[in-house]
Amino acid sequence: MSTNAGPINLFEFEALSKERLPKEEYDYIAGGATDEISVERNRRAFESWALRPRVLRNVSALDLSTTVVGTRVNFPVLLAPCGGHKKAHPEGEFASYRAATACGTILAVSANASADFQELTKAAPGHLWLQMYPFRDPEMTKSWLQGAKELGYEAVCITLDSQWPPKRERNIRNNYKQMRGANYPKLGPGESRGPGGGNPAATWKDLEWIKSATDLPVVAKGIMTGEDVELCAEAGADAVIVSNHGGRHLDNTLATIEVLPEAVAAANGKIEVLLDGGIRRGADVVKALALGAKAVFIGRPLFWGLAVAGEQGVTRVLEILREEIEITMAKCGRATVASLDPTVVVKAPPL
Amino acid sequence: MSTNAGPINLFEFEALSKERLPKEEYDYIAGGATDEISVERNRRAFESWALRPRVLRNVSALDLSTTVVGTRVNFPVLLAPCGGHKKAHPEGEFASYRAATACGTILAVSANASADFQELTKAAPGHLWLQMYPFRDPEMTKSWLQGAKELGYEAVCITLDSQWPPKRERNIRNNYKQMRGANYPKLGPGESRGPGGGNPAATWKDLEWIKSATDLPVVAKGIMTGEDVELCAEAGADAVIVSNHGGRHLDNTLATIEVLPEAVAAANGKIEVLLDGGIRRGADVVKALALGAKAVFIGRPLFWGLAVAGEQGVTRVLEILREEIEITMAKCGRATVASLDPTVVVKAPPL
Amino acid sequence: MSTNAGPINLFEFEALSKERLPKEEYDYIAGGATDEISVERNRRAFESWALRPRVLRNVSALDLSTTVVGTRVNFPVLLAPCGGHKKAHPEGEFASYRAATACGTILAVSANASADFQELTKAAPGHLWLQMYPFRDPEMTKSWLQGAKELGYEAVCITLDSQWPPKRERNIRNNYKQMRGANYPKLGPGESRGPGGGNPAATWKDLEWIKSATDLPVVAKGIMTGEDVELCAEAGADAVIVSNHGGRHLDNTLATIEVLPEAVAAANGKIEVLLDGGIRRGADVVKALALGAKAVFIGRPLFWGLAVAGEQGVTRVLEILREEIEITMAKCGRATVASLDPTVVVKAPPL
Amino acid sequence: MSTNAGPINLFEFEALSKERLPKEEYDYIAGGATDEISVERNRRAFESWALRPRVLRNVSALDLSTTVVGTRVNFPVLLAPCGGHKKAHPEGEFASYRAATACGTILAVSANASADFQELTKAAPGHLWLQMYPFRDPEMTKSWLQGAKELGYEAVCITLDSQWPPKRERNIRNNYKQMRGANYPKLGPGESRGPGGGNPAATWKDLEWIKSATDLPVVAKGIMTGEDVELCAEAGADAVIVSNHGGRHLDNTLATIEVLPEAVAAANGKIEVLLDGGIRRGADVVKALALGAKAVFIGRPLFWGLAVAGEQGVTRVLEILREEIEITMAKCGRATVASLDPTVVVKAPPL
Repeated sequence: MSTNAGPINLFEFEALSKERLPKEEYDYIAGGATDEISVERNRRAFESWALRPRVLRNVSALDLSTTVVGTRVNFPVLLAPCGGHKKAHPEGEFASYRAATACGTILAVSANASADFQELTKAAPGHLWLQMYPFRDPEMTKSWLQGAKELGYEAVCITLDSQWPPKRERNIRNNYKQMRGANYPKLGPGESRGPGGGNPAATWKDLEWIKSATDLPVVAKGIMTGEDVELCAEAGADAVIVSNHGGRHLDNTLATIEVLPEAVAAANGKIEVLLDGGIRRGADVVKALALGAKAVFIGRPLFWGLAVAGEQGVTRVLEILREEIEITMAKCGRATVASLDPTVVVKAPPL
Repeated sequence: MSTNAGPINLFEFEALSKERLPKEEYDYIAGGATDEISVERNRRAFESWALRPRVLRNVSALDLSTTVVGTRVNFPVLLAPCGGHKKAHPEGEFASYRAATACGTILAVSANASADFQELTKAAPGHLWLQMYPFRDPEMTKSWLQGAKELGYEAVCITLDSQWPPKRERNIRNNYKQMRGANYPKLGPGESRGPGGGNPAATWKDLEWIKSATDLPVVAKGIMTGEDVELCAEAGADAVIVSNHGGRHLDNTLATIEVLPEAVAAANGKIEVLLDGGIRRGADVVKALALGAKAVFIGRPLFWGLAVAGEQGVTRVLEILREEIEITMAKCGRATVASLDPTVVVKAPPL
Repeated sequence: MSTNAGPINLFEFEALSKERLPKEEYDYIAGGATDEISVERNRRAFESWALRPRVLRNVSALDLSTTVVGTRVNFPVLLAPCGGHKKAHPEGEFASYRAATACGTILAVSANASADFQELTKAAPGHLWLQMYPFRDPEMTKSWLQGAKELGYEAVCITLDSQWPPKRERNIRNNYKQMRGANYPKLGPGESRGPGGGNPAATWKDLEWIKSATDLPVVAKGIMTGEDVELCAEAGADAVIVSNHGGRHLDNTLATIEVLPEAVAAANGKIEVLLDGGIRRGADVVKALALGAKAVFIGRPLFWGLAVAGEQGVTRVLEILREEIEITMAKCGRATVASLDPTVVVKAPPL
Repeated sequence: MSTNAGPINLFEFEALSKERLPKEEYDYIAGGATDEISVERNRRAFESWALRPRVLRNVSALDLSTTVVGTRVNFPVLLAPCGGHKKAHPEGEFASYRAATACGTILAVSANASADFQELTKAAPGHLWLQMYPFRDPEMTKSWLQGAKELGYEAVCITLDSQWPPKRERNIRNNYKQMRGANYPKLGPGESRGPGGGNPAATWKDLEWIKSATDLPVVAKGIMTGEDVELCAEAGADAVIVSNHGGRHLDNTLATIEVLPEAVAAANGKIEVLLDGGIRRGADVVKALALGAKAVFIGRPLFWGLAVAGEQGVTRVLEILREEIEITMAKCGRATVASLDPTVVVKAPPL
């Protein structure tokens, strides 16, 4: 920690978590597919957009709240569905959920969660989403959709970029064995338990069927083209998450912030557009919202928060982002999330 | 010092000041908001414009003088309003003012000055501006405007980019306590004494009111968009300073030299455009003037001058810039400031 | 090796081969012309194209097979004609040919091969091409063309970028003596035996004549402009290889992947376009095919495979590429090579 | 030296000269104005143009000869007018002139030469130009023009970018005293003997007058804009040298190879365009000629040649460039200098 009060930004959380986590766990969290070009690009691409400060617009009363597929959140940063929070802290998802609730935001629970889906709901009076795949066995998909509804999860997040397993070389070198998800005994025969938990044979009919099989909002995760945003809208999804899985599945993609304008144009107001990938500063959040995202997710930073101080660490990560968003919005002359529009940003050419 | 005669350029002044100043003071001066991307970009963006040498144009008699909101200066570099010059030298603003006067230019005195506004006026027979904020208490604003006039300050500089406090991580890490401004006992109740000395609720009406409340020229500082240049002109300001506060308030902005063309276009001749941010070489000054700035300010370099040799150091910083401006103008075939036009420069693409 | 199972990507093969090969041999393989700018650019230019992931397209049954000038291969990566495989392993081309055959692809045998052209054909039941030059002595050219046909080679690859010897500074510094090709006793008087095995006086008539003198497919290697693609087509060639000889002949060219779109446009479907240069990842292969290449070649990586583990090493190099191509195609939603079209990629601007 | 045979490229000459020259002399030669941005840019900008290899064009008989303002040279690389060759070798300009003559090219003798203009003419049966300034004293200019003619110099090179002295910080730090030119006793009163040997008051009338005062070809050196190329043509000059004085006078200019297209367009065939700045490889020469330069000059490399091995060193520097030009031309399918046209090159975007 840089001061007695702890890390002062997310990079310090990262550095401190690296000291505290076993190397193989740190690597699992930090790493990406093959050359990790997309991991790096997700981050650096935010620098290719500059902020445009505005003055004298009365920013004395900032309101960062917004809604995401109908759920109101206090500020536009959600916790991404990441497997096995217990990797980073014994309280795992329980800590994360309490932190999200304290900050007025949502935890999206991974299919590979280390907490029992049902137990988790009892840990806080907040908002949960359930992340899942179009499983090979439609009965299993149906059962999970029903479970999500019955347990009070407020949306289902369908991960679509994991139909084929990735090549993550840090994990190969570390001979890394992923923690077994706590909820996978419920998996049907033939289903994968690894990161490529999807079904290579899945098609858009699977997403249409999922939509028809639940009345929860359906959020399609892992979309990186305007074409697929349109297809998601046609399949009835309520939102897409522009995501390259943090650079963890296919390397050599554009950064998510680079794809966002194409996605927002294709969405054309018919479907909400969310984003993850490389969010480390409040300024990143403001840029994403200015370019049309409704909200963003953080993934790796939640593990850093857990590794440093459990629930308190995740809370602090969220608070830091919130404070940085406030500074950024105030200095761009925007008092509300709704007022963040494309005039807040401008392309910053390479120098 | 690189030779017996002392530092030969501003970078050597910087290096030498780093040796002489306490780390926390050096960091306070050097640092910027969050990742200090804009601090760096301010500087590097000057390289994205190249100079176009011209020959055989008789440059035997160079005249660098110009006017800034009506005040004639010997050359187009002014001292920016920076708080607490005593941080760097016991004589503080007194030294800076005498140096500015010796070089025939203007000191803009910060609201957070370490010298008494009245005492300072007695130190030299030169030109002073007073920098202030639209304070929360209009009476206080009025009182400062009147004081500026009575004490013979020749313009007021209204800082507009500080309505919300910044996040400066070097200062947080150093547990830095800013020096108390010598003139702030006069502050009204509820006014901030820190870098975010502005009022978050201020609007364009405040600037209009300031203009109506003084007959001194009003210079609006901290403008980074064409839109705000137009609004400043509409509010009656006499000049804008294109400034991102040296990258010290909002990170992730464009460099000021990148914003300058947009600002000059928006000014459309109705309001003078000045600039600060990253000026370290005479060539930088010439580029800014070629792109339409009337004059520029230096901030950090005045502290380096103070730290190295007090009044003499600031004088030398200004002299070095003057000599470099002369070389640059002569080699671009321009004998006068008025002849610096956009044909002096050309975009230098990244290689 | 990074794990017990050996290198997990081609870069690890490279690093390991560097440990195992004599410096001068490693340098001969790694090096290029003069400043090796094109060696590096070949590689880095792949990063200037990003992949566009697509979802829900049923990629459960991947088919990587394709044809190259009429020969079916199991996947679109061929072994480039490189001289003297014995430099890297005692079994030389025999090992490479068995590996190519095991993987269902083609070995293009160099004119400077360290294996006897005839003996080699007996080593495996696969596919061989013969690489040669337009020799100074047309009788020799004729004799080689006939020999290729009689020995069952399935195409001739005519290298056109070697009419003048290159400047390879690593070799000069190492006082490197290239291994004598096993088949060059058959060379006529006056023919070069070195890397500049071509005839500076050769013209397009030579290529036309070669085409007329054989009924094997003729593949023109070393083409870097649309103009020359058109001339190859007019001369009757069946394919071109867009190649800058791995940056080993002329430095300061574009990367081959940069030239590919121009070459494909000029080919206009009349002639197949192949590519070599900098292929290290399956993603590189997919990008090249998306931009219109029918298949690609690897050169240096085959030496790395040989140096590390002979036939098994080359096989592993090919398998790794195959696995990476599968991941890339699946995640781009493409089940077949034929479905790889320009919408798979998008320019990734420098950040 | 990298081998017994000596340096194999100009960079090795540079490295070796650095070992052999006193630091202050090496720095004088290597250094440039202020931040040396233009020194570096001159060099790197060559990489922004790629070569386009062409095949099968019969390059068996290369002819590198050309003419420069009427004088035939064996290849298009001339020795630039640089002061005080004795800095690098006791034989100074005598060695350089013999080397130039051996290679069939021209030595442009500096006004600040360390050899007597008359003595030098006796050292070899080659080609000399005399470089000079528009001096303050027109009588002196006249006298030098007449002297050049009488001594058999074949052209006069009028340096125009030195009307104002530069700021070269390496020299200031080294307290460098430039060698006194051997011919300057002939200077009139009031004339400078330093690098800023020009007259700040000079105008285009001075160049017109020089043209009228001699029947030697007049070459205007130090031109960096299309506007000044046109003015040179109007003043009657026979050629311009696109030059930023090796980055030694004004920093922050474009590279000369970047300005060349603008200069060639402005010349419009009415005046020859030459170039210096950053030439280190034969490829650089070919690029400059492809973009319209008639020939190029080398400056620093001649000092490196001198420092390493006197006449033999300069000869070797020229030979290396010649060999590299041959390779480049042959591989671009060009047998003659006249066939080098803009299709030889293509912009190589930053990656």
